[in-house]
Amino acid sequence: MAEVNIRNIRLFIAYDGTNYLGWQIQPKGPTVQGVIQEVLSKILGHKVTLKASGRTDAGVHALHQVAHFLTTSDRPLEIIFKALNSLLPKDISVWKVEEVDFKFHAQKHAYKKTYVYQIYNYPIKNPLLRLYSWWVPEPLDLEAMKSCLPLIIGEKDFASFRKAGTEVKTTVRTIYQATLERSLENSNMIVFTIEGRGFMRYMVRNLVGALVEVGKGRLTVEDFENILNAKDRKVAPPPAPPQGLILKKVEYLDVKVLESYPPFEVKI
Amino acid sequence: MAEVNIRNIRLFIAYDGTNYLGWQIQPKGPTVQGVIQEVLSKILGHKVTLKASGRTDAGVHALHQVAHFLTTSDRPLEIIFKALNSLLPKDISVWKVEEVDFKFHAQKHAYKKTYVYQIYNYPIKNPLLRLYSWWVPEPLDLEAMKSCLPLIIGEKDFASFRKAGTEVKTTVRTIYQATLERSLENSNMIVFTIEGRGFMRYMVRNLVGALVEVGKGRLTVEDFENILNAKDRKVAPPPAPPQGLILKKVEYLDVKVLESYPPFEVKI
Repeated sequence: MAEVNIRNIRLFIAYDGTNYLGWQIQPKGPTVQGVIQEVLSKILGHKVTLKASGRTDAGVHALHQVAHFLTTSDRPLEIIFKALNSLLPKDISVWKVEEVDFKFHAQKHAYKKTYVYQIYNYPIKNPLLRLYSWWVPEPLDLEAMKSCLPLIIGEKDFASFRKAGTEVKTTVRTIYQATLERSLENSNMIVFTIEGRGFMRYMVRNLVGALVEVGKGRLTVEDFENILNAKDRKVAPPPAPPQGLILKKVEYLDVKVLESYPPFEVKI
Repeated sequence: MAEVNIRNIRLFIAYDGTNYLGWQIQPKGPTVQGVIQEVLSKILGHKVTLKASGRTDAGVHALHQVAHFLTTSDRPLEIIFKALNSLLPKDISVWKVEEVDFKFHAQKHAYKKTYVYQIYNYPIKNPLLRLYSWWVPEPLDLEAMKSCLPLIIGEKDFASFRKAGTEVKTTVRTIYQATLERSLENSNMIVFTIEGRGFMRYMVRNLVGALVEVGKGRLTVEDFENILNAKDRKVAPPPAPPQGLILKKVEYLDVKVLESYPPFEVKI
């Protein structure tokens, strides 16, 4: 009997979430996972199941999502790479394809994720930025918002910022860094960047929702601290809308890469 | 008989051209002019005809289009401004409304227009930039492209860069400035900026189409000069696609503004 070689393939993916019901496959409508799996199955001739670093919700974007899948196909990586990008729709790109150690797992081995949230803070909406930012017309006190950031750094219980009605094993998460800066090219765009070991669903959007309330002067920095300490979702403001959120990076500890392309770096 | 006061109102408009057949009203489908006229007619209670600084073609964007219209309505500008922005779709904004001298004409009195053309130059397409740039995967020689720019500055005959099959009185146009730079925030984005007294249809896109051929090494700077000097549309390469083009500014010589709002500055 011929030996069947099973390969573990890792994809680096960028997508515009506007027209999808999020990453995770579901019967109600198009998802990023569903579209890529369908194309991969066509290319490889067998059913493919993708495992991503984590789901992104409906309308959320990604410049650097990572997913892996197993295949018995011996098609060269370059062919898979080219076929994927010629068959995928315009709002999904795969910018790197590589073979990794059999043990690599896109979700379990991710040790750091970086999200960006864009707030367009200007009295008039900008039609060209509407799909990739939250339009907040009221003036925001950026310094007050920045004063909240040290409170969320480190290992904290983010129970107040989880998605209402969801069950999780623990609401404790570790945040490595969080910054809030005006964009270099457009001072009306405020960019919130957060790096952490992992995030709960809606956590970044719930944090931004509360930070913007501080920026508007409706909450003080002390109120923000009290919300965090209350460990109760019901005391926090509603989440920021999805279109401002972009998964910017997923990082892994040393992984044996068996074959590789020149790395492409995709930027916003 | 009561005296009827006719007012001349000037609008500053930003729009995402993705979903429109261009500025100018036409029966085949939605246009920016058509949508704004319909909303204005509803607000003012009479048929409104907008006159813009110039048309933009299907898929082309604007951050600073200027248009004017006459009205017999005495509704305050602030009411018109607020009603417009609450009734317009998300991809059109009016960021300033003001009453101007009766003689002001948005097209005839424009003395300077600035267009930006964005080229995303990277081996892999970026889904988040696809609607506002031309994806060119091949490497571009930026220095060679820049060497062409002095050739188009000044009063020149741009017959080679007009839209094929269109009739114009003269193909001579005056270009004040043209630059080509990498974006500060994303070095893969090349931004072409051109300022001129006026432009023919497709002229900017035809210039960019030829510049990119120089960047790819398929044309030399001398070839570009020969194309310009040939004054013949048939010798020039095809136009760059519409989604990279943005009308960035329209400027007027002194105009008597009768009432004004605090100026908003909309940036890309």
